[in-house]
Amino acid sequence: MIIWKHIQAELDRRFKETGVENVYMPMFIPESLLNKEKDHVEGFAPEVAWVTHGGSNPLQERLCVRPTSETLFCDFYKNLIQSYRDLPKVYNQWCSVVRWEKETRPFLRSREFLWQEGHTAHATAEEAEERTVLMLNVYADFCEEVLAMPVVRGKKTEKEKFAGAEATYTIEALMHDGKALQSGTSHNFGDGFARAFGIQYTDKDNTLQYVHQTSWGMTTRLIGAIIMVHGDDSGLVLPPKIAPVQVMVIPIQQHKEGVLEKAAALKEQLAAAGVRVKLDDTEKSPGWKFSEQEMRGIPIRIEIGPKDIEAGQCVLVRRDTREKTFVSFEELETRTKELLDQIQTELLERAKAHRDAHIYDAHNYEEFSEIIQTKPGFIRGMWCGEQSCEDKLKEDFAATARCMPFSDQEEISSVCVCCGKPAHRLVYWGKAY
Amino acid sequence: MIIWKHIQAELDRRFKETGVENVYMPMFIPESLLNKEKDHVEGFAPEVAWVTHGGSNPLQERLCVRPTSETLFCDFYKNLIQSYRDLPKVYNQWCSVVRWEKETRPFLRSREFLWQEGHTAHATAEEAEERTVLMLNVYADFCEEVLAMPVVRGKKTEKEKFAGAEATYTIEALMHDGKALQSGTSHNFGDGFARAFGIQYTDKDNTLQYVHQTSWGMTTRLIGAIIMVHGDDSGLVLPPKIAPVQVMVIPIQQHKEGVLEKAAALKEQLAAAGVRVKLDDTEKSPGWKFSEQEMRGIPIRIEIGPKDIEAGQCVLVRRDTREKTFVSFEELETRTKELLDQIQTELLERAKAHRDAHIYDAHNYEEFSEIIQTKPGFIRGMWCGEQSCEDKLKEDFAATARCMPFSDQEEISSVCVCCGKPAHRLVYWGKAY
Repeated sequence: MIIWKHIQAELDRRFKETGVENVYMPMFIPESLLNKEKDHVEGFAPEVAWVTHGGSNPLQERLCVRPTSETLFCDFYKNLIQSYRDLPKVYNQWCSVVRWEKETRPFLRSREFLWQEGHTAHATAEEAEERTVLMLNVYADFCEEVLAMPVVRGKKTEKEKFAGAEATYTIEALMHDGKALQSGTSHNFGDGFARAFGIQYTDKDNTLQYVHQTSWGMTTRLIGAIIMVHGDDSGLVLPPKIAPVQVMVIPIQQHKEGVLEKAAALKEQLAAAGVRVKLDDTEKSPGWKFSEQEMRGIPIRIEIGPKDIEAGQCVLVRRDTREKTFVSFEELETRTKELLDQIQTELLERAKAHRDAHIYDAHNYEEFSEIIQTKPGFIRGMWCGEQSCEDKLKEDFAATARCMPFSDQEEISSVCVCCGKPAHRLVYWGKAY
Repeated sequence: MIIWKHIQAELDRRFKETGVENVYMPMFIPESLLNKEKDHVEGFAPEVAWVTHGGSNPLQERLCVRPTSETLFCDFYKNLIQSYRDLPKVYNQWCSVVRWEKETRPFLRSREFLWQEGHTAHATAEEAEERTVLMLNVYADFCEEVLAMPVVRGKKTEKEKFAGAEATYTIEALMHDGKALQSGTSHNFGDGFARAFGIQYTDKDNTLQYVHQTSWGMTTRLIGAIIMVHGDDSGLVLPPKIAPVQVMVIPIQQHKEGVLEKAAALKEQLAAAGVRVKLDDTEKSPGWKFSEQEMRGIPIRIEIGPKDIEAGQCVLVRRDTREKTFVSFEELETRTKELLDQIQTELLERAKAHRDAHIYDAHNYEEFSEIIQTKPGFIRGMWCGEQSCEDKLKEDFAATARCMPFSDQEEISSVCVCCGKPAHRLVYWGKAY
């Protein structure tokens, strides 16, 4: 939860810089409201939790627990927005949502999860498109700068897009095991929801127009991503920017005179410098404490014992590389902060190197078949645009079109990696959770 | 929502100073879990929303949407707590809960509301009692210092206590119309839930013991309290500490040269000094803007026009008293901050004076009857301790025992205000929403 609070604080700050305001909508959606947009209800109705009774009385109309709140925001905007002067509306809420998944997976697919959902309304299609791309970039930058997690930015295919959206943009990350993880999405609805809900405004020429809408979300799935991108066999490896505790001070031979006092002083020294630091002065053995803080992914542990005190230094041990550095007491703040920055930077570099080493090009079905079965990672392959090819690759290999990348669109071949027909779109394919 | 975020930030800071950690529990409670503590389920089962279907399939066991989360925390603590070393646990969550109220009232009684719920587990009854009182005092101090709302601290009667609690402490505020509002409660559960759920720990002598628990909550009802304590016929009057916007700068004759520029400069000057300030540079008339900011309860408006600029000053107008002060540009930050502090202080003083002027003593049924029907406010009256007297006063006058005050326990009479039998407990009675 503390990791999520850190994610929330950092994302919220970035949202506000783009003009986002926080609101809160009800958790229940009346069935009739959910039904208003055809594609949307088809996508979500099979996986919602239904409230049918209040106390001992059956309800006149069933309520679903929000799986996402487009319909609630639309119902709200319908009354709120009258004139071009009321636009844009750029609202966001932090809440939990429920999707009745048949199979669940900790952090990645849980029936209830915490997230933020932004919902915006704009006067023009161009503005809506700008906001959709803007938020995708906020997400991608956040993942790289804060979670030290490189992502591929791109567009979903028609088959994979959000229920009710005109276009869905996505950031896709590669996990340690070579599987892809959709880590954030941003949707452009065009005026589809506006038409279904009647959200109209009077423009400067006094003509009624439909608004253009977007929505975008990130979830506690990101915690799963942190685990699977940076973790190792000893446990978590947390990027310093998101770590609840950045430094754990562990006294050695703490019963000896002066050790606990010095350990506490180092802790205070770092805390005063703005480092999130704790002291483990419990009765457990140092070895036990080392393992424990490794499991919890604390970026740096500081060892301090009688010999260190005599030598006027302590030992900084990195969680990620286990590298040890001797640091004099005078330099402690500076060196600790430098090391935290260095760890943050190197985690991103390592994750980037890992990802780049696991992107493969496939030029035809045979190559695709061989790579997907032997080399976990992303496969770059051309696609003709037919859903039948997506269906076939999913059925044959459980592979899906992760995205059509924005910045990496080159024609690595002229034919579809599945059917061999002419193809001009590059797709990142992969297996997902 | 911004008001709630301010409340949340300030309360959360105060919680953390007492060692509280934030967590998050699921929103659904399986029926069998809700049923584990007899009094608790009797209190809440009639007013919960039941989820009976996931997608199109009926669930094997119904789930209720949490009306409060004691049962979830107990189920969690049962596994988490093994030894005295694991105690205390002092957890809190910020979330929304659902209670299927028949009659609702904006902010005061809504089917879904936002709140925080703290749930703690302790080794001893004394520690649990200390925490219960500590949190009630955090609540009371917060209400007075931040919301400028005086409260009476006291204990609920058996009839009015929380379902499953051994004792409930409460803070009761008096609204403008003389009605009482329960504004925060803190419950001591003793070991009742621990016995129902089997939450045991091994003490230092290696003996199994039950934990002692507490819970405490405050809700978005506080926003209703702010409205009803400070508001007037022109709209909200927000205490500066909680106001999303503390100062609104309103230009007069803004089309004249230099006015908008100076207004913007004043805004920047105040923002740099840490004041939450906005500039209304829309095309609406100044009069319209005055009314609008009054309705929204913004503590200070600053008027700045061509004549003011010439005179090197601007006009500060208080929302609460409408008093005007001319302030030179040089003194703007200092005087604005002083005025915000003064408003905050005086709002509390006025609310205290209003409350104290509406506390009446009743010595017998006739006096009680006359006061309750003619003078809205709190009635101080002795009580014998019998629920039948509470029932009678409720039936006759819709009056309830708000609390048995901690600090005001004097025997204003020797007999019960209802039945005339010997009585030693002073009760604050009142009508509530």
